[in-house]
Amino acid sequence: MSPRRRLVAVCGESDPQTPLKDLAFELGRGIAQRNAVLVCGGLSGVMEHAARGAQAAGGLTIGLLPGDVSDEANAYIDIAIATGLGHARNAILALTADGIVALGGGLGTLSEIALALRNRRPTIGIKTWRFDRHNRTEPELPVAANPTEALDWLFAQMGRVS
Amino acid sequence: MSPRRRLVAVCGESDPQTPLKDLAFELGRGIAQRNAVLVCGGLSGVMEHAARGAQAAGGLTIGLLPGDVSDEANAYIDIAIATGLGHARNAILALTADGIVALGGGLGTLSEIALALRNRRPTIGIKTWRFDRHNRTEPELPVAANPTEALDWLFAQMGRVS
Amino acid sequence: MSPRRRLVAVCGESDPQTPLKDLAFELGRGIAQRNAVLVCGGLSGVMEHAARGAQAAGGLTIGLLPGDVSDEANAYIDIAIATGLGHARNAILALTADGIVALGGGLGTLSEIALALRNRRPTIGIKTWRFDRHNRTEPELPVAANPTEALDWLFAQMGRVS
Amino acid sequence: MSPRRRLVAVCGESDPQTPLKDLAFELGRGIAQRNAVLVCGGLSGVMEHAARGAQAAGGLTIGLLPGDVSDEANAYIDIAIATGLGHARNAILALTADGIVALGGGLGTLSEIALALRNRRPTIGIKTWRFDRHNRTEPELPVAANPTEALDWLFAQMGRVS
Repeated sequence: MSPRRRLVAVCGESDPQTPLKDLAFELGRGIAQRNAVLVCGGLSGVMEHAARGAQAAGGLTIGLLPGDVSDEANAYIDIAIATGLGHARNAILALTADGIVALGGGLGTLSEIALALRNRRPTIGIKTWRFDRHNRTEPELPVAANPTEALDWLFAQMGRVS
Repeated sequence: MSPRRRLVAVCGESDPQTPLKDLAFELGRGIAQRNAVLVCGGLSGVMEHAARGAQAAGGLTIGLLPGDVSDEANAYIDIAIATGLGHARNAILALTADGIVALGGGLGTLSEIALALRNRRPTIGIKTWRFDRHNRTEPELPVAANPTEALDWLFAQMGRVS
Repeated sequence: MSPRRRLVAVCGESDPQTPLKDLAFELGRGIAQRNAVLVCGGLSGVMEHAARGAQAAGGLTIGLLPGDVSDEANAYIDIAIATGLGHARNAILALTADGIVALGGGLGTLSEIALALRNRRPTIGIKTWRFDRHNRTEPELPVAANPTEALDWLFAQMGRVS
Repeated sequence: MSPRRRLVAVCGESDPQTPLKDLAFELGRGIAQRNAVLVCGGLSGVMEHAARGAQAAGGLTIGLLPGDVSDEANAYIDIAIATGLGHARNAILALTADGIVALGGGLGTLSEIALALRNRRPTIGIKTWRFDRHNRTEPELPVAANPTEALDWLFAQMGRVS
């Protein structure tokens, strides 16, 4: 009986030309070096570079795909979960991850940040969305300057939770 | 063969003590008066008052419930869809609505706004989230001062789309 | 405050050439005549003819679509819920319906029958799947000879449940 | 860049007292020995014994949980995906697995068999549901006498597919 693995998600834009590719790679590598499994949306851009980083450090990578075909996964995904749910898979990612890092990202990423905070998962952002609400207090999204800072904070939080 | 009905969603907080109850009622009433069907998350707070308003104007109300029991629906829901999907039902709401109004709301509402904009649905907010992203252009969330202004804009947009 | 409407589902094959179209029409009509809302998968074949029957009797029809576009609905759907979930929407149908009739149908219909029985919803079949399991007792699928017999049984069961 | 892993699902009853526990263990072990990843519903009974077997052979195990808490997973799950989708997660399992074995099982398992066949995934049963449909030809569920026979057939089919 081996212990259940920790899952840490990296969310971000699918644009293959993303200027965030080095940061994504570092995040993936750092997650694997800290002995957690990388979870992501399985597509291109930030997701692909994070998976590449995790594999480079000998880590395991999971892609929660929106579509119904495993071949949709980028080349660095070990385990492709073809959910067939479209954007509803964002809700699974925000639920099953023990911690979440948002790096850049579009509106899909914003939905993941919102649900991750809603689910009280430790969540942190780098160069990503800022938001606030009229006349109300909600958990804020902490911001990190770089991958190491983000992961140090995230794993400290996750340590407290488990 | 009757024409397919238009669905307009109202998203917002479930807090039964919400100070937005009169605005929610007006939104629901206005949607019914404009001959659209109200869709919402089916729970209390903004969702309940919007459904109450729609019924008061003789309209039809649909609740996309997160849980697996129809009795979870508030008393003003005509048709309860017990999805059993939790927050993943937010993605359905943001997909199936022809137009969306966000009124106040917590992080669940933020996830719905994000996905509605992602899906290019006409979407407008009243006293709700503001957000922007580092170094990137995304569709902005238009803001209305009151329900009439919100619905006038929304139905004009929907007219263009259909 | 109007009372919540009862939802009765008709499941069956999407084949537009289905020989079951008259039975489907009768089922839809009977559901509307009994003052319930017809729920179905929203596509062609049995789903379309059942919706046509329900509208012919002045009833309301809901289509839980697998895809992400409302235009996928057949012409007799009043309210199209574009779930974007693919076959996972079958689980919603089997959960939210107060009663289910299976008429013919392929493997998708079999999955809906199985989940409907699993959820202890009153469920009955006409010319549909038969199944049994090695060495085990499960709720059986009752079989009706025609739509009237099916609906009489179903509404009697639903009466008991509510 | 490591090659994407093959996923093979074992479906079956959650009853902890299942008489099928030795067969489930053998299935899990055989899947791991054939270098595939075991996917299952993550709960007790057949799912737990299959995961135990896979771990005993050094394999990796994934649990697609219906609930929203990873701790719901049995003790032999390496990677818990808390979907929060209830039975709708059955549709994911039937979609993402490259091959499926059904061992015994209740109505949830029947829904998984139906969708797996619908998705044209190689699928085989041991001591499980038998079904047929009035007046129609559908893909049949092949039946195996034991785990070795089931897996030999399944991997031969999967070989052809990929």
